[in-house]
Amino acid sequence: MSQKWFLYHSSEDPFAFPVGEGALKIRLFVQAGQQISCKVIHSDRYDSPGREIPLIMDRVGSAGAYEIHEAIITTDMKRVRYLFYVENKTGEYLWYGERGISENRERAGSFQYAYFHRNVALELPSWISDAITYQIYPGSYNQGTLQGITEKTPYLQELGITVIYMTPIFESPSEHKYNTTDYYKVDPGFGDMDGLKELVSQAHQHGIKVVLDAVFNHSGDTFFAFKDVMEKGENSAYKDWFFIDSYPVTQSPSPNFETFGKAEIHMPKLNMDHPAAADYMIDVAKYWVREVGIDGWRLDVANEVNPLFWARFRRELKAEYPELLLIGEIMHASGPWLRGDQFDGTMNYVLRDAMLEFYAEQTTGPVRFMEQVLHQEALYNDQANSAMFQLIGSHDTLRFLTACKLGGRGWDRESTAERRMRLAVFFQLTYIGIPMIYYGDEVGMEGATDPHCRRPMIWQESGQNSGLLEWYRQLISLRMSHEVLRKGSFCPWFTDEARNVLGYVRQNGPEKMGLIINNSPNSYQLELSPYCTDKNVLTDLLTGLYFENTDKLFVQIEPFGCLMLY
Amino acid sequence: MSQKWFLYHSSEDPFAFPVGEGALKIRLFVQAGQQISCKVIHSDRYDSPGREIPLIMDRVGSAGAYEIHEAIITTDMKRVRYLFYVENKTGEYLWYGERGISENRERAGSFQYAYFHRNVALELPSWISDAITYQIYPGSYNQGTLQGITEKTPYLQELGITVIYMTPIFESPSEHKYNTTDYYKVDPGFGDMDGLKELVSQAHQHGIKVVLDAVFNHSGDTFFAFKDVMEKGENSAYKDWFFIDSYPVTQSPSPNFETFGKAEIHMPKLNMDHPAAADYMIDVAKYWVREVGIDGWRLDVANEVNPLFWARFRRELKAEYPELLLIGEIMHASGPWLRGDQFDGTMNYVLRDAMLEFYAEQTTGPVRFMEQVLHQEALYNDQANSAMFQLIGSHDTLRFLTACKLGGRGWDRESTAERRMRLAVFFQLTYIGIPMIYYGDEVGMEGATDPHCRRPMIWQESGQNSGLLEWYRQLISLRMSHEVLRKGSFCPWFTDEARNVLGYVRQNGPEKMGLIINNSPNSYQLELSPYCTDKNVLTDLLTGLYFENTDKLFVQIEPFGCLMLY
Repeated sequence: MSQKWFLYHSSEDPFAFPVGEGALKIRLFVQAGQQISCKVIHSDRYDSPGREIPLIMDRVGSAGAYEIHEAIITTDMKRVRYLFYVENKTGEYLWYGERGISENRERAGSFQYAYFHRNVALELPSWISDAITYQIYPGSYNQGTLQGITEKTPYLQELGITVIYMTPIFESPSEHKYNTTDYYKVDPGFGDMDGLKELVSQAHQHGIKVVLDAVFNHSGDTFFAFKDVMEKGENSAYKDWFFIDSYPVTQSPSPNFETFGKAEIHMPKLNMDHPAAADYMIDVAKYWVREVGIDGWRLDVANEVNPLFWARFRRELKAEYPELLLIGEIMHASGPWLRGDQFDGTMNYVLRDAMLEFYAEQTTGPVRFMEQVLHQEALYNDQANSAMFQLIGSHDTLRFLTACKLGGRGWDRESTAERRMRLAVFFQLTYIGIPMIYYGDEVGMEGATDPHCRRPMIWQESGQNSGLLEWYRQLISLRMSHEVLRKGSFCPWFTDEARNVLGYVRQNGPEKMGLIINNSPNSYQLELSPYCTDKNVLTDLLTGLYFENTDKLFVQIEPFGCLMLY
Repeated sequence: MSQKWFLYHSSEDPFAFPVGEGALKIRLFVQAGQQISCKVIHSDRYDSPGREIPLIMDRVGSAGAYEIHEAIITTDMKRVRYLFYVENKTGEYLWYGERGISENRERAGSFQYAYFHRNVALELPSWISDAITYQIYPGSYNQGTLQGITEKTPYLQELGITVIYMTPIFESPSEHKYNTTDYYKVDPGFGDMDGLKELVSQAHQHGIKVVLDAVFNHSGDTFFAFKDVMEKGENSAYKDWFFIDSYPVTQSPSPNFETFGKAEIHMPKLNMDHPAAADYMIDVAKYWVREVGIDGWRLDVANEVNPLFWARFRRELKAEYPELLLIGEIMHASGPWLRGDQFDGTMNYVLRDAMLEFYAEQTTGPVRFMEQVLHQEALYNDQANSAMFQLIGSHDTLRFLTACKLGGRGWDRESTAERRMRLAVFFQLTYIGIPMIYYGDEVGMEGATDPHCRRPMIWQESGQNSGLLEWYRQLISLRMSHEVLRKGSFCPWFTDEARNVLGYVRQNGPEKMGLIINNSPNSYQLELSPYCTDKNVLTDLLTGLYFENTDKLFVQIEPFGCLMLY
């Protein structure tokens, strides 16, 4: 039997998750384009039928094939039984519960959220709502040393960022240092333990936290344990630290052990399910926090490491250091790693893909962009969304400005590239999560993908794009001075596909801010439904211009311009 | 933008899960009624585009609002990138990947199953594929003692069951014993440690395993730790073992501590997140396995206990006793507990609800019944489905025969009740998972819900329904003598809503068995599409009758009859 509309929900993260004491967020996917209104009808699981409370759900917006509807159930009891009632404009309706979708309420059954446990929801370091991260590739930043980075902490403080994330700094024969020789030693080319301590100390004095890169998916082939296996074969005490197919171990003509990627012979894959290997790496992770006072770990190739290891890793690290930030490198949908037991957030390449196609390539319009933004948000619980590293580029991608120059519509793509990048940065710095700026993007560095995106930082002012740098500083400053931009929720406001313009609202309690992006070469006078109705005039914080806000909000927006209405 | 059809998939259990070395089962939900064919197109995650392999998906059947399509991806590599291509009869098509549903393949993106870890899939005791469980309420079985149960092991062996599950036997002031006084002591009314050892020993000698009931969601108020809190208040070393709102602790007029259910004052809720409480109960669980040699635990109110405790519980118990069975009492959709880190299976009340409405109440027909069977299967991975306790009643429900007498269509509901129950038992014993028989059902015991469903077992032959008992023995014997009934997959064959008849097939490699159920008071001659085409004649194993099987399969079926075609 075919039902009128398809709905999807499951009584678990990211469709049901605690958002505070006695509060449960419920998310429902509804087939798009049906103009359906939704209610969630709930009671204590031990109540007899008839005591249910109906709660109208908010339509967050369309994510393409489906719309997202949400509600927050609050209850003194720690357990909820609920079902959905959905209805269209012509009065057709359906019930949806654990047993399915039906016109008959009894047949739909009920969903059950068994119990609100105290420590099952994702708990985050308290400082992340104020965080703006800056990614450094240490070999290319300043003299290629930790000391060089330390010297630039005043620059970073002036830029306004609050977290440095550095790619690996431990001893390794390669330039990228993702094949570790010694997890306990700073690479001599970068400096030494004292240099790292000095960097962390100076950063902290400048209000900046430090996140290091941990490579636990694989070691280098120069790592003592792998060398031991190469040498002693089956008799090595470390043979179970890796995935060895046969002995003796050989790297050519093809490796007879598991590696990172496709036969990266210098990167033998670590077996983090092996207790001794897990112990070793957990000790490594604790060592650098304890000895140097770093504030977080970014975990390389986190999706390919045994999740049971990550669960133990989080338990043990957070028990000692609850304010430590744990970010996984996962380039795809990373919901399973963000349910509370593994990472705080991940590097959000899924959002980057959406920004790339809208701002840089201009192959999609505002409708698809907004859908993609909501689609990737719907993969995660609210807490995880607030801890994602929101990036437009990294050491593994082409630089965003280069993408803007290669992409774009029409003959003027080169000349509009910087303006489109500015819009992407505007979105990044007015969106939820933790913005992550890749070193050099702020001064207009260009480069195709690795190795071109890893070129030395440009420090000569003549080589820097001072306008872009000022744009970054202004936006960072506005984010830091307006709590609504750091802590507010994100809601779509409008999309104007014909004009290539979109708007969204950040809201934190009664505080609201409206953001508008014009991704077209035209200037517009726009007549909009106001997102807040208790003000007669709104100010654009970027320019100080005023706009009338009565029954309608009238605004003027420049080509590739944006507005921050407050 | 509205899409033609709604689809749902997420790259995680129960939509993607390992089913053996290098094999990943992929499950896709497709909006029902669209006659859509599906392919999954996959490659190694590190392959460049263009090396994908297309794989046609099987349409398992309709689950109501959606159809279930499945495929098994096999790969030497341990990581998969994939997307779906779906097409209807008129050539309209969609792509579906991590970025959504689109007519444009690039815009759909790809799903990623990052890596096949060795120990992340649910691993089960090796013996469960042969298991048939018999639930005993010890106070009501034979003399109300463990010795009485021991004396009945020959009866149980003759019946053919292979597992006894007993509700709690530890010291408790109540008759049901779910409010434990002493987790280390057999209730004196039931016997003692030696009596339990003798029961387990005798059971084992008769080829029967023993599963006990562990109540870790709450203790009794007579439990030493709670008594200590009652007495010493805030100074008690055990105060964090419970959820105490204020001191002194009181039970009246209403409890100022958290309880099971709605203010069950004799059942204070345990805080299993507290390390000492968790240590204590894990020691309890290990003690009875070590000292007595029991084969499994059934975990009471498992859905309300902290899942982090269960994860630790499984890790520690399975490390010492990998063949121990862990079954959770969860009366609703229990997917989150069956992903490999907590239970092997749960008590399947969701399936029972479907059986109740089809066979006992007769409020639904075969289409809805088959939809519900597939719907609840789709909540779980294959491994969990093979370890569910498939029940038609328990100490917490009215007895199935009573439900059949209360329900049913027409004036003859009483006279057809037993025949409808026989059909339910036929389904239960020819379906996947572990059938669980509630004591007394096999001799025709009746009773409304608790306490009536917990009456003393009828041992006098004059009070027993010998025909029903023989039916159970015959079906159990057939299940044990045909591997396909224990290990085969379950596939819908046909549903005939007008006649109230349905068929399904069990298949294990080349071995197939066809099962037909006539849930109507009429006899039929049926002309069916054969489920296997390499035999000219099929035999009904219940009666020995032969049926012609050529282009069509012609069968005769009695009122409320069933066939087991082989």
